[in-house]
Amino acid sequence: MKMNEFLPMLAIETTGEICSAALLVNPGNVLELNVFEKHSHSEKLLISIEKLLETAGLKTASLKSIAISEGPGSFTGLRIGYSAAKAIAFSLEIPIIPVPTFDATASQIMTYLSENTEFGIVSRVNREELYLKQFVKRKGTVEELTDISLINIEKVESKFPHKMLFCDSTLNGVIKVPHITAGSIAEFAYLFGEHLLNYNFDYIEPRYFKNFTVRTM
Amino acid sequence: MKMNEFLPMLAIETTGEICSAALLVNPGNVLELNVFEKHSHSEKLLISIEKLLETAGLKTASLKSIAISEGPGSFTGLRIGYSAAKAIAFSLEIPIIPVPTFDATASQIMTYLSENTEFGIVSRVNREELYLKQFVKRKGTVEELTDISLINIEKVESKFPHKMLFCDSTLNGVIKVPHITAGSIAEFAYLFGEHLLNYNFDYIEPRYFKNFTVRTM
Repeated sequence: MKMNEFLPMLAIETTGEICSAALLVNPGNVLELNVFEKHSHSEKLLISIEKLLETAGLKTASLKSIAISEGPGSFTGLRIGYSAAKAIAFSLEIPIIPVPTFDATASQIMTYLSENTEFGIVSRVNREELYLKQFVKRKGTVEELTDISLINIEKVESKFPHKMLFCDSTLNGVIKVPHITAGSIAEFAYLFGEHLLNYNFDYIEPRYFKNFTVRTM
Repeated sequence: MKMNEFLPMLAIETTGEICSAALLVNPGNVLELNVFEKHSHSEKLLISIEKLLETAGLKTASLKSIAISEGPGSFTGLRIGYSAAKAIAFSLEIPIIPVPTFDATASQIMTYLSENTEFGIVSRVNREELYLKQFVKRKGTVEELTDISLINIEKVESKFPHKMLFCDSTLNGVIKVPHITAGSIAEFAYLFGEHLLNYNFDYIEPRYFKNFTVRTM
């Protein structure tokens, strides 16, 4: 497996409400620290990484790559995650692996679905809109059916009456599932990250998709 | 909520392949450390608890209760989990909350299922047998249909051809799902633990269900 030379891998997931860090030490040996607390990402991310390394008995300098959940997701969460990932990658001169958050989430959810089920992953953008990406489970793997698009929250139930849609927050007509954690980001990066390795990470950016707009109240 | 006086709560889940500890500091504020590594429970459980407390900025003495995943599950894992839980509860003079592992797993899996779905949680006992408990999702909650029983692995597919059965290890005819973690054990204990509080923990024992038998090879 080509990715073995990039282990131990640190993984960071800060696109949702969970502040999550993981260490993929070897295949079958993963440590993960999840903090479920709103607005705790800036306070808890670095100490979580430090405590994970201590639990694994590893030095920071032994890290060989950093997988980061690239979004879509919370602006602030993405900024915090990328900032930490870039700083550590810069210090240690190791590559960053940006992982598409919805694809990794789909891989995680797939296990609960029967063959040929079409489903979508959604996440809330603001009061009116959702990000949506559609997939199908086929031959035990996930195939993408669409790219990520924006849809209006009110149209979800009428537009997708028979489709399973999964979200990490409560919405009418949408199944609430736990938010993806860094362990799953690490696993995705290990399996599919070979072509995502990025050494030129000064210029990589989170996938915001939508431009940030300041709203007048 | 009556359980608030038992926070912060430590939770321990060692019945499966994951060595998992969690801290429920307040509702909506949970920290969880998961180590996915075979046979690592004895080595990683106490350091995980220590590192979690450090991440949360809490002293061990501040703990007010300990939720423990009571089984069924691995003999060795249960011994390690109970031994640590009892030692900490004894030292701090706080109660233990034994959480039925399959019930907590069912609550976690329910989110993926549609209304009125009958399903089962299974886990492997040995080469030939499984533990099985059946549930139904009704009105957004889980109802038990049976108690835990032992069934033969070979009979799973023929006996439950149309039922969804979930297991944390790979078996024919059974859907593989991630093993429950200590965060979910803590959540279950917080919601339903009021009548499970146990101060007389010298005598509490894991739910082995089946007596341990030494096999001749």
